[in-house]
Amino acid sequence: MEKWRATSNLRRSLKSILNRQLSSVSEFRYLNEKRSCQSSFNLIRDCKSLGQVNAIQHRCFSSASTLVQRNPSFSTLNSDDISYFKGLLGEKSVIQDEDRLETVNTDWMHKYKGSSKLLLLPRSTEEVAQILRYCNSRCLAVVPQGGNTGLVGGSVPVFDEVIVNISSMNNIISFDKVSGILVCEAGCILENLISFLDNQGFIMPLDLGAKGSCQIGGNVSTNAGGLRLVRYGSLHGNVLGLEAVLANGDVLDMLGTLRKDNTGYDLKHLFIGSEGSLGIVTKVSILTPPKLSSVNIAFLACNDYSSCQKLLMEAKRKLGEILSAFEFLDTEAMNLVLHQLDGVRNPLPASMHNFYILIETTGSDESYNREKLEAFLLSSMEGGLISDGVLAQDINQASSFWRIREGVPEALMKAGAVYKYDLSLPVEKMYDLVDDMRIRLGDLAKVVGYGHLGDGNLHLNVSAPEYDDKILEQIEPYVYEWTSKHRGSISAEHGLGLMKANKIYYSKSAETVQTMASIKKLLDPNGILNPYKVLPHLLNS
Amino acid sequence: MEKWRATSNLRRSLKSILNRQLSSVSEFRYLNEKRSCQSSFNLIRDCKSLGQVNAIQHRCFSSASTLVQRNPSFSTLNSDDISYFKGLLGEKSVIQDEDRLETVNTDWMHKYKGSSKLLLLPRSTEEVAQILRYCNSRCLAVVPQGGNTGLVGGSVPVFDEVIVNISSMNNIISFDKVSGILVCEAGCILENLISFLDNQGFIMPLDLGAKGSCQIGGNVSTNAGGLRLVRYGSLHGNVLGLEAVLANGDVLDMLGTLRKDNTGYDLKHLFIGSEGSLGIVTKVSILTPPKLSSVNIAFLACNDYSSCQKLLMEAKRKLGEILSAFEFLDTEAMNLVLHQLDGVRNPLPASMHNFYILIETTGSDESYNREKLEAFLLSSMEGGLISDGVLAQDINQASSFWRIREGVPEALMKAGAVYKYDLSLPVEKMYDLVDDMRIRLGDLAKVVGYGHLGDGNLHLNVSAPEYDDKILEQIEPYVYEWTSKHRGSISAEHGLGLMKANKIYYSKSAETVQTMASIKKLLDPNGILNPYKVLPHLLNS
Repeated sequence: MEKWRATSNLRRSLKSILNRQLSSVSEFRYLNEKRSCQSSFNLIRDCKSLGQVNAIQHRCFSSASTLVQRNPSFSTLNSDDISYFKGLLGEKSVIQDEDRLETVNTDWMHKYKGSSKLLLLPRSTEEVAQILRYCNSRCLAVVPQGGNTGLVGGSVPVFDEVIVNISSMNNIISFDKVSGILVCEAGCILENLISFLDNQGFIMPLDLGAKGSCQIGGNVSTNAGGLRLVRYGSLHGNVLGLEAVLANGDVLDMLGTLRKDNTGYDLKHLFIGSEGSLGIVTKVSILTPPKLSSVNIAFLACNDYSSCQKLLMEAKRKLGEILSAFEFLDTEAMNLVLHQLDGVRNPLPASMHNFYILIETTGSDESYNREKLEAFLLSSMEGGLISDGVLAQDINQASSFWRIREGVPEALMKAGAVYKYDLSLPVEKMYDLVDDMRIRLGDLAKVVGYGHLGDGNLHLNVSAPEYDDKILEQIEPYVYEWTSKHRGSISAEHGLGLMKANKIYYSKSAETVQTMASIKKLLDPNGILNPYKVLPHLLNS
Repeated sequence: MEKWRATSNLRRSLKSILNRQLSSVSEFRYLNEKRSCQSSFNLIRDCKSLGQVNAIQHRCFSSASTLVQRNPSFSTLNSDDISYFKGLLGEKSVIQDEDRLETVNTDWMHKYKGSSKLLLLPRSTEEVAQILRYCNSRCLAVVPQGGNTGLVGGSVPVFDEVIVNISSMNNIISFDKVSGILVCEAGCILENLISFLDNQGFIMPLDLGAKGSCQIGGNVSTNAGGLRLVRYGSLHGNVLGLEAVLANGDVLDMLGTLRKDNTGYDLKHLFIGSEGSLGIVTKVSILTPPKLSSVNIAFLACNDYSSCQKLLMEAKRKLGEILSAFEFLDTEAMNLVLHQLDGVRNPLPASMHNFYILIETTGSDESYNREKLEAFLLSSMEGGLISDGVLAQDINQASSFWRIREGVPEALMKAGAVYKYDLSLPVEKMYDLVDDMRIRLGDLAKVVGYGHLGDGNLHLNVSAPEYDDKILEQIEPYVYEWTSKHRGSISAEHGLGLMKANKIYYSKSAETVQTMASIKKLLDPNGILNPYKVLPHLLNS
């Protein structure tokens, strides 16, 4: 799931493939987790009528377990509430239909499921403000929801929270062709923004597999990473302003359209990546780069990880301004793709190599950029960094190279049980973890390493015929402790959500987490916004 | 003062020139401000022994005036305090010498002067923590100080605050050549970091005139802009982590070295640009780009502002990845430079043009980048966007082009009285303000427009033979109101400090400012950190 370049159609096809496999994967997880503690999956499966569920248990930090209790200070919906919302939003925007609720209660992976009885569809900031003002006064918990494409259980209710979905707020407000600054409502679907900008000669500074469904408000709220981060940086650099509604209904208008503004604390950053737990993002202003016409892709082989690192350094120096992707996969990942996916072949078939690198360049001059990439590849080969390589001659070849890299998650799911870790680590240490895990696991499982080398983002995956506690015991908490020891992040791009709320201490100090909790308390004293998520459960009530 | 590319030697020469002029400029300001309200300058000048000063009056928002009172809840230093600090830091790091205190009490422009009786020079985060823990318990106010190069009175005491200068914390902790990530203590001088990185084949993502004195902790705390922002973006994008000490002495270790980390709220952004009022930054982790070998500079003329805008759009599209500066000045600015500065000549002398543009490109391939720039200039000339232009043939020509742009502030100071405004505005509106001001002022004064067009940063300057309330009344609050109306920023890169604390509402909504004040209260309940700065005085005590 880490990344693919699917259009919405392709994405829908992939989704159907994935959905076909989910039942068996879910079963594996269910069987696996049941042995170690009362499983959240178990509870979710058992609760077709979830209204009665008041507690969910999870694995948590240091392998202890914590019972997630429904916060008893939250009210439950009554008919007066429904009448209020109908009066405010109109009948059509107050959804109680069971089928529609089923969809918005369930996350994209079918891993998390809430039991909300109410979906609200506001059409304006003022409506969002009035909803929150009311919910806060009534102590009704709320889940802000965009495209519901998150992977950590952040975008669906845990219990009976009211779902505030902002998909009806999907207008583009303005676009400045001189500065490339786009202002839009938070419910705009990313792919629609990409299409709009394409017609203007610009691109979004982020792009990700879920673009056909995900919304810019959700992207901002989760600080989505994606495919263009190595070139254009994170949303903290690209989002120029936003508007957010606080839990008490106050609207913070921080919708600046300026590259430079040093007037007081830059509060917008609190809302970028806080997963809707501090406020609901309603409008976004974002700096968009001009579209560049030339794209080139090379697929390369390296003998060892040290060469991959050196190649990255050289690419940053010699390709510098045109480098737009630097991805890697190891030979285990390549073998999986070749064995599991139909129609995929290794473009460097002479012999198996230890590491493969995909380099993409994007620039404004086709012939020159190609020459530049060719010269770089030649010198890297002469210098012994690359053992083999091929440059895509057309868009089909380019797609086939991307298919290998992006096919790894799908191949892993086809291969059987898979333990997935999305880690940020210092580049020079990153692959040591893969080697360590191979030693720890021996013949128990295959360890696969791949990911966004240019961003220091490793996707560590452990593949086995079936889930097995012996394997899990060798992986956790070792992987988290290893990541923590090397000052890495246990969530590079997916956030914490419900899934990893209790694991935050592996990546953040106790004082920092305590300060986060203080800010949560300050901005949302009743804790109504996206409860049970992001922060440890003991601090989050 | 906005910007120049001076080395430390050149900077010292310029400083001496500026200092020679300051007395007369100060006198102008003094005379001018005395007429409208009791002047802060007046008070500062009158108070050689400032211990007794308990109130300073300032112009404030909407032309009302607010008395800045010394916060009576702050303690005054006693001999026990001095003994404590000597025991903690050693005799040499506890400075009471009058001459040294004179220096650190006075800002770089000699515009603001405090009356602190104590300068502390901690050498470690733990020492900073113990100082703050003690000051907080004693309710002693503190001014965090780096290189003291700020322009808004943010880095010197207002009354008798203890000065905590971090210049002794100047070690480079680590540098990762693979990822380009530098970790260092906050007291490192920017120019030293630039030199260190140069030897490693990297550059800092920011560069500014004050680099010979300013420190990275101060750069981060003030979110310094500078020369490379158009290419590499702001510090919110480039600072990967930091360590900060809160008012109560708690150390927030957020010193990550990762490009991607979505584990909880990204609190480091609160400390970027909050001018030391939320905590003292003690360590910084920053992403540094590789050094690129090819630099080219063109000096161009445009007939109208619309052409300047279109040229910027074209440059972003056609030069895209190699564009590193896009500066502009109008004909009034050019005339001033030519008349006031020795040895400066217009490289496009055939006739005077309405606008001048300086474009810089930086890339990894000399011959190609030059060809690319030449092709761009040719097509822009053929398309009628440029009326004339010249490309620097060597480093001397390049320097002479920069000299024109960077000489504008100096020329303005030589020309007489100058009213200076550092504004961010939407690019398409930016020059309308200059035109409006010309209409408002008529023959009263010359209006000069120049700045960082690529960043949307206008330096609006009004030049007159002498300061005159009639002129000021035509400018303020009109300029602030105009900026506010167009959602601009009244401080693009200098911050608010003491000077503009009360003007924040021109750029930020009341709800946002109130939230800032709540966060200040949360993190610094006694308000000891950099009091009277950043936030409006009514909220800042």
